[in-house]
Amino acid sequence: MKVINLDHISAKPLLPEVKAVMITAIEKDYHNPSSQHKSGEDAAGALQTAREAMAGLLNCKTPKEIVFTSGGTESVNHAIKGVALANEDKGKHIITSNIEHNAVIRSLRRLKSNGFAVTSLPVDAGGRVNPQDVAEAITKDTILVSIMHSNNETGTIQPIEEIGKITREKKVIFHSDAVDSVGVVPMDVQQLGVDLLSFAANTFYGPAGVGGLYIRRGTRIFPLLDGGVQENNKRAGAENLIGIIGTGKAAELALRHMDKRLMHLKALKDHLLNELPSHIDEYIINTHPAYSLPNLMSISIKYIEGESVMLMLDDDNIAVSTRSACATGSLRASHVLLSLGLSHADAQGTLVISFGIDNSKEDVDVFLKALKNVVTTLRDISPLYQKKADKLGS
Amino acid sequence: MKVINLDHISAKPLLPEVKAVMITAIEKDYHNPSSQHKSGEDAAGALQTAREAMAGLLNCKTPKEIVFTSGGTESVNHAIKGVALANEDKGKHIITSNIEHNAVIRSLRRLKSNGFAVTSLPVDAGGRVNPQDVAEAITKDTILVSIMHSNNETGTIQPIEEIGKITREKKVIFHSDAVDSVGVVPMDVQQLGVDLLSFAANTFYGPAGVGGLYIRRGTRIFPLLDGGVQENNKRAGAENLIGIIGTGKAAELALRHMDKRLMHLKALKDHLLNELPSHIDEYIINTHPAYSLPNLMSISIKYIEGESVMLMLDDDNIAVSTRSACATGSLRASHVLLSLGLSHADAQGTLVISFGIDNSKEDVDVFLKALKNVVTTLRDISPLYQKKADKLGS
Repeated sequence: MKVINLDHISAKPLLPEVKAVMITAIEKDYHNPSSQHKSGEDAAGALQTAREAMAGLLNCKTPKEIVFTSGGTESVNHAIKGVALANEDKGKHIITSNIEHNAVIRSLRRLKSNGFAVTSLPVDAGGRVNPQDVAEAITKDTILVSIMHSNNETGTIQPIEEIGKITREKKVIFHSDAVDSVGVVPMDVQQLGVDLLSFAANTFYGPAGVGGLYIRRGTRIFPLLDGGVQENNKRAGAENLIGIIGTGKAAELALRHMDKRLMHLKALKDHLLNELPSHIDEYIINTHPAYSLPNLMSISIKYIEGESVMLMLDDDNIAVSTRSACATGSLRASHVLLSLGLSHADAQGTLVISFGIDNSKEDVDVFLKALKNVVTTLRDISPLYQKKADKLGS
Repeated sequence: MKVINLDHISAKPLLPEVKAVMITAIEKDYHNPSSQHKSGEDAAGALQTAREAMAGLLNCKTPKEIVFTSGGTESVNHAIKGVALANEDKGKHIITSNIEHNAVIRSLRRLKSNGFAVTSLPVDAGGRVNPQDVAEAITKDTILVSIMHSNNETGTIQPIEEIGKITREKKVIFHSDAVDSVGVVPMDVQQLGVDLLSFAANTFYGPAGVGGLYIRRGTRIFPLLDGGVQENNKRAGAENLIGIIGTGKAAELALRHMDKRLMHLKALKDHLLNELPSHIDEYIINTHPAYSLPNLMSISIKYIEGESVMLMLDDDNIAVSTRSACATGSLRASHVLLSLGLSHADAQGTLVISFGIDNSKEDVDVFLKALKNVVTTLRDISPLYQKKADKLGS
């Protein structure tokens, strides 16, 4: 049974070209890139090719600025804890925002229990941090600013370039969790002015469980994984070479097909936005109209629960999500949506629709039709909706 | 050109069955195991199957005691730093040995700079820790003992079971870095009495860059990677499902074929040991005659340099190593060999020969013949060897 995947934020399919190079790597069965004999050379070469492709996607000054990791979460942990511990002689103050991913929030929580102070900045109703707030929050003890590039629940993009200008001027290290942006929208670490940038390969149709961290040359940071001298002595441990080779190919293709993909995704999103009003009413779009990912939309549908919508759409073989897959099982309303000013009820009624290049306009049409039925069914049994109807009728 | 791989400690080939399940996983292209819709269920099922296979290999009480990681290094970092930070209210003393892998040494170094005290125990001439030394080193501040199961340069196996009895009695958490043992020799976490055990999939012919940590239920430990709720809330981040599926298959086969593999490897090692004296003279075997891995032998060949031997054998398409691949590039003599009491000169003359199930007796014969030529050539130009010959001749 074909499933229409509108939950690309949880998992994107591997590109055929990525599958091909990974399968070839498995069949070829590389030796260890660190080995000094000939068998290791091929492996080291394949690793370097992937590193160059990744550096090209981000416009790094040298491929050495790319450290491959086991994914976005490791990259974020490495960036935040690594900078904090390497710079605590300078100060113990870190600035972040209220809408970060759990990897950032929990890494910072860990540091707080080690005596670090964290200032968490609010976002406006559109979900964006005010760069001026960052400037004002910086003290002589501030060693790190960590603000995400795009939000994984709303798709809203932050003013990273403006914040980068401030952190450069104030000489504070700047990390951006760009896990949902790298490979989706054009990213240039020089232009953004970041010192550290976290990314994940699956975001650009590479394998899950692989990612990396851009570390600007000269940035003072400790490894998260201590041990051997791999990754230019910045990340110990034998490399997941099969996954890294897939990541390199995915990076190369993301750069090459960026414009084409953006146009395709934008067309799907516009189609959804245009058609939505003729299918359901009383909803809130949580995604910023101007500053947002082309592939993600957050919709809060009033009087019903997002989880019920998700499960009923699942019966129709349509996959959507209600929030970050990393927060699965949590019953609390999303901190991201509450930060936007949504009520608990509206936050609970939220669907995250995330497109991929494999989606078509027809997928959106099938979704809209199914959504209309699901919303009607659920509102018919919703006490909140009945109350509202009674009120209007009275 | 066929290369004879006698450097399995750096990289083992993937089993055909492992390749097959990994390729199938790539083609099938799983969704995210944490997703709540149907697409995520298959992925969650595949993850669970792998976890059960791994738990079976180690005789865990429940598969939940297995946490998949990006490899041995992450597992070791997680175990050591995670226990230290979660238990520092109880004490800040850790016991280890002088011959640990860099992942252990450098994780502990990191903790030392955070105020932890580390007692590092010596080994005897056979390369083994005395359990009585562990007992005597434990103080009321001791929160962790970390002693490796087998050494990655000599293959010598430590008296883990005896140490486990002591740590249980004294109620100290016990971690063993078993990266080079798991899947090679029978391992039973109940019998060993460990609370934490690090392993790597490539050791048992699974993919590189995947591994895990056994965490006995109830062990007080923090995650190393903070973020999402994956891996029973013990290790955040999207899973490298393709690699984990390969790991599960490799674990299943390691358990099923353990005896057959042990016999095959032992025959190769015995053959090498028996034939070595008729090919070269003046060497030291650093591997313990009784307590050692079946697949690894460390030989220090007098008057010449291991690195030169390795490079010349490489020209003959035979891959061996001189030490851990993780320490590549380091010019210092191995701390492991110096701990055994070897001189710097002898330590520099060391070769690590590591067999795999893909090796044959003929491979050993080809190696012995090549080694004889290489050693003769190198000794002919060795000032040390000339000096010794002159002395004997005078």
